[in-house]
Amino acid sequence: MSLIRIQNFSISLDGFGTGEGLTFEEPFGHAGERLHEWMFATRFGRGMFGGGDGSDGVDNAFAQRHDTLDIGAEIMGRGKFGPQTGPWTDLGQDDEWRGWWGDEPPFHTPVFVLTHHPRPSIEMAGGTVFHFVDASPEEALALAREAAGGRDIRLGGGATSIREFFAAGLVDVAHLVVVPIVLGRGVRLWDGLEGLEADYEIEQVSSPSGVVHLGLTRRAAGVTE
Amino acid sequence: MSLIRIQNFSISLDGFGTGEGLTFEEPFGHAGERLHEWMFATRFGRGMFGGGDGSDGVDNAFAQRHDTLDIGAEIMGRGKFGPQTGPWTDLGQDDEWRGWWGDEPPFHTPVFVLTHHPRPSIEMAGGTVFHFVDASPEEALALAREAAGGRDIRLGGGATSIREFFAAGLVDVAHLVVVPIVLGRGVRLWDGLEGLEADYEIEQVSSPSGVVHLGLTRRAAGVTE
Repeated sequence: MSLIRIQNFSISLDGFGTGEGLTFEEPFGHAGERLHEWMFATRFGRGMFGGGDGSDGVDNAFAQRHDTLDIGAEIMGRGKFGPQTGPWTDLGQDDEWRGWWGDEPPFHTPVFVLTHHPRPSIEMAGGTVFHFVDASPEEALALAREAAGGRDIRLGGGATSIREFFAAGLVDVAHLVVVPIVLGRGVRLWDGLEGLEADYEIEQVSSPSGVVHLGLTRRAAGVTE
Repeated sequence: MSLIRIQNFSISLDGFGTGEGLTFEEPFGHAGERLHEWMFATRFGRGMFGGGDGSDGVDNAFAQRHDTLDIGAEIMGRGKFGPQTGPWTDLGQDDEWRGWWGDEPPFHTPVFVLTHHPRPSIEMAGGTVFHFVDASPEEALALAREAAGGRDIRLGGGATSIREFFAAGLVDVAHLVVVPIVLGRGVRLWDGLEGLEADYEIEQVSSPSGVVHLGLTRRAAGVTE
């Protein structure tokens, strides 16, 4: 069975998945890189962003599943592709913008970018193809399922799209990471999800790095790790 | 040095310290007892509320410090004393109301109840004396320090008073417990506390019971466990 998975999605103690004020210079607003330092310190993170060997403990065991699980497509909110909002003219250079992720993005599959402003698809090196779709969670999932060919689908974030997919009952397995900082403002992950625990087995695993790995696995029949 | 401590204060994944709709029947509103089941399952909790032996693992190691640390006074919000709000006439039986905690409350010290509606003190069996004070956090702490005679002071909650004491920079050591439920509504603990991590060492310890014990220890000189 093809599962829809959230992987390595970091939130603050107060439940913000990103800070306030997303800009070209600060993709996570005032949160800066603080939500993701745990990942940069792992072998997986160093392999992706550079900086030496990295840790190989529980943080890496979770993080590296981004690459080792059999993912056939990703769905992401527009903010994970770029800082622009509204029609694609905000930066005056939107036509050249090919995402935050460099020439060879780490997805290696079709990626469905949720936006109210569709534009032509962009094919990158390494197998990533960005498709821009004005779609409900259900519609986006149907597109991703077709593209994934029976493999799993990664729901890449940010907080708004994750919240919408949870609310629509479409998330099978979620790996969230609680970072011990209080952001105070930004985009909240949990709003509108009262009682989510009724539908999920929830596991909390603390790491020596200071973060907690939070796992949610849907109780529905057929969902197994 | 006398420290001000928070002990065993439970919050949901989404950071609520209590649910919505505090009533006589539901002291934690729609949260019911779900924020505290972890404690009821411990040896400490069973000793306080009954029900057999209880667990003696990490949950109990934290919980039992409520009684084993040298606490000389408690400060609590009015909701931890009773369901009444406003002047003491709401239930028509306020004169007889002596708190949620039975004839011999588990505090055994002076307890300063924060309220805008002072009333005469109430002396209970076992050493607990409830004093009702219309006081700022600083003023309440001064009263508690004098009563505690050099011993530590427990800040008993709820979420509103904890938030106010954190905001005033008055909390030395906090033990919070993150319970894997999404309450969705109620009183948030973290609001207004952006950047709290700058002032505290933060430890997260997961328990087989499913909760995470969250420890905050102030970096200020002289604060040691």
